[in-house]
Amino acid sequence: MNELRRDPLLGRWVVVFKESLSPEEYVPPRETPVKGSCVICSQADTEEEVLGIRDEQGTPLVRVLRTDGSIFSSDVQLERRGVGMYDMMNSFGVSEVVLETPEHNLTPEDMGPEQMKRVIDAYYTRTLELERDDRIRYVMIYKNCGALSGDLCGHSHSFITATPIIPKRIKEELDGAKGYYGYKERCIFCDMMREEQRYGKRIILQTEHFIAYCPFATRFPFEIWILPRRHNCYFKEITEEERADLGFVMTDVIKRLRRVLNDPPYNFVFHSAPSKIPRRAQWHTLGEDFHWHIEIMPRVRRLTGFELGSGMYTLSTSPEDAAKFLKEVSYED
Amino acid sequence: MNELRRDPLLGRWVVVFKESLSPEEYVPPRETPVKGSCVICSQADTEEEVLGIRDEQGTPLVRVLRTDGSIFSSDVQLERRGVGMYDMMNSFGVSEVVLETPEHNLTPEDMGPEQMKRVIDAYYTRTLELERDDRIRYVMIYKNCGALSGDLCGHSHSFITATPIIPKRIKEELDGAKGYYGYKERCIFCDMMREEQRYGKRIILQTEHFIAYCPFATRFPFEIWILPRRHNCYFKEITEEERADLGFVMTDVIKRLRRVLNDPPYNFVFHSAPSKIPRRAQWHTLGEDFHWHIEIMPRVRRLTGFELGSGMYTLSTSPEDAAKFLKEVSYED
Repeated sequence: MNELRRDPLLGRWVVVFKESLSPEEYVPPRETPVKGSCVICSQADTEEEVLGIRDEQGTPLVRVLRTDGSIFSSDVQLERRGVGMYDMMNSFGVSEVVLETPEHNLTPEDMGPEQMKRVIDAYYTRTLELERDDRIRYVMIYKNCGALSGDLCGHSHSFITATPIIPKRIKEELDGAKGYYGYKERCIFCDMMREEQRYGKRIILQTEHFIAYCPFATRFPFEIWILPRRHNCYFKEITEEERADLGFVMTDVIKRLRRVLNDPPYNFVFHSAPSKIPRRAQWHTLGEDFHWHIEIMPRVRRLTGFELGSGMYTLSTSPEDAAKFLKEVSYED
Repeated sequence: MNELRRDPLLGRWVVVFKESLSPEEYVPPRETPVKGSCVICSQADTEEEVLGIRDEQGTPLVRVLRTDGSIFSSDVQLERRGVGMYDMMNSFGVSEVVLETPEHNLTPEDMGPEQMKRVIDAYYTRTLELERDDRIRYVMIYKNCGALSGDLCGHSHSFITATPIIPKRIKEELDGAKGYYGYKERCIFCDMMREEQRYGKRIILQTEHFIAYCPFATRFPFEIWILPRRHNCYFKEITEEERADLGFVMTDVIKRLRRVLNDPPYNFVFHSAPSKIPRRAQWHTLGEDFHWHIEIMPRVRRLTGFELGSGMYTLSTSPEDAAKFLKEVSYED
């Protein structure tokens, strides 16, 4: 079992692998994933299926597999302890992988909005299920696509992890949104959405339920955020109709990104308020001031010592120019 | 001139390039820097030299050049303003590059501790000089080595940037150290040093003035921190004798790292307390509770959606194992 350790200075949790890799195992990242040795395809038969979305013939279209032990282990009791002046816990939590398409070489965006909706349905169903466990404080959904984004197999897939802690990055967002709310008594995301609609030049796409745009100040050039237009802090409260719309928006936006940057490596992450802290009654506290959203980050620039050391980032393409490229591109052949 | 924009949610500053790169310009990072077209060598004749350390014949051994406009520009007045709901400022600040060796193919660690000391002397002298400007609130020293660390030329060099803001990452460290100090009335770094000396297994090297070790919970596997044994929050108060010792420690540790991981890309960053906030009189406030240090981060693993989304990190080699490899390796041929 892996262990989780807490950086005493920054309060950041780090997963330490049970079996250390030796120096020789750190090969430079491959530019192109090796298709023959797909880890995902080989797991498909051995790991426990926790969700399967099938067509009328019973062929699985989207599957979610439990991958216990990869990062987190679900079959242990949560244990926290001190080691000298440091703090650690065991790696209690849930790791799941979402097989987004039935075939190794397909992607959901190539299959179209209906397939993308099935993937979103899987995220939604698993989030509801995982949040039932009282020990779980946060469910994170994310994707690595392309070797330079950390994806090592090339089969279109994404991850769901459920942890007994609220990740540092989410905490920072919650704190930031809370600070703004405390000052303005308005949701910062709703304000940003209105500001973007007024200004217009950073918007890529608007539908009935969503807005996709390149935010004012992001970590990566061509970074895209997708926000639901209806104020809600929880992804898990997304409606059926909204999921269908989001299927279209994600398909469209990812196709645009792939066309503009020539199939770049990218990550996306769903950000939602953690649901364990009751907050309906306390309007001002953590959560009602939050607004769930998706961040899509193309990985076309390496982080340097500047970013790692300062926590500042450099945008070599302005969000306005990036949005223009993304909006104007035609991805249909 | 570039512009600086503030992420309203996280309070993170982002540098937006004046001239956007077009999508075609995002070529995948080269594995090996192109030697013929060295940006550093070509800058050596055109950019203003702000410091030169020369041998008795007048041959420059270490040079520091002002690279105005690359990220920051020193010849403008600091201006802050709002744009809609967002905040921005111009890119007032100082960008300098340190040419660490006279020849394109040399590194200071290959030249030995005396050359490394000259590089550190350059950092020291420039920090003292740059901090004289009242508008400057933080001086950051960092290095990118190897294409995958963000280094695009291959000539051994490092950077000094001086900014009118305290970078987010430094602020977080100061806050973390302050929180610990408030609770324990002890410096967290001094406590960590004692803990590491007691435990022993994460230490790579100890000298009269410094300790080099793999911390309990870091961002990257094989990450190394170098701490001065004498409590001091400011790098700029390092003595001549300590600089000589640090020259040896950095030479030794970087050689170990290069041997163990087969010349990995890496970054290092100096972390110091900002000196503009008077704090001698107020023992409890920002700064006296801090302890300057160096973080060396090998870049042998890509950050994935997990790290970018959660702010958590995965260590695929434990710090204890990493320290063992680094301690036991022999780098002399």
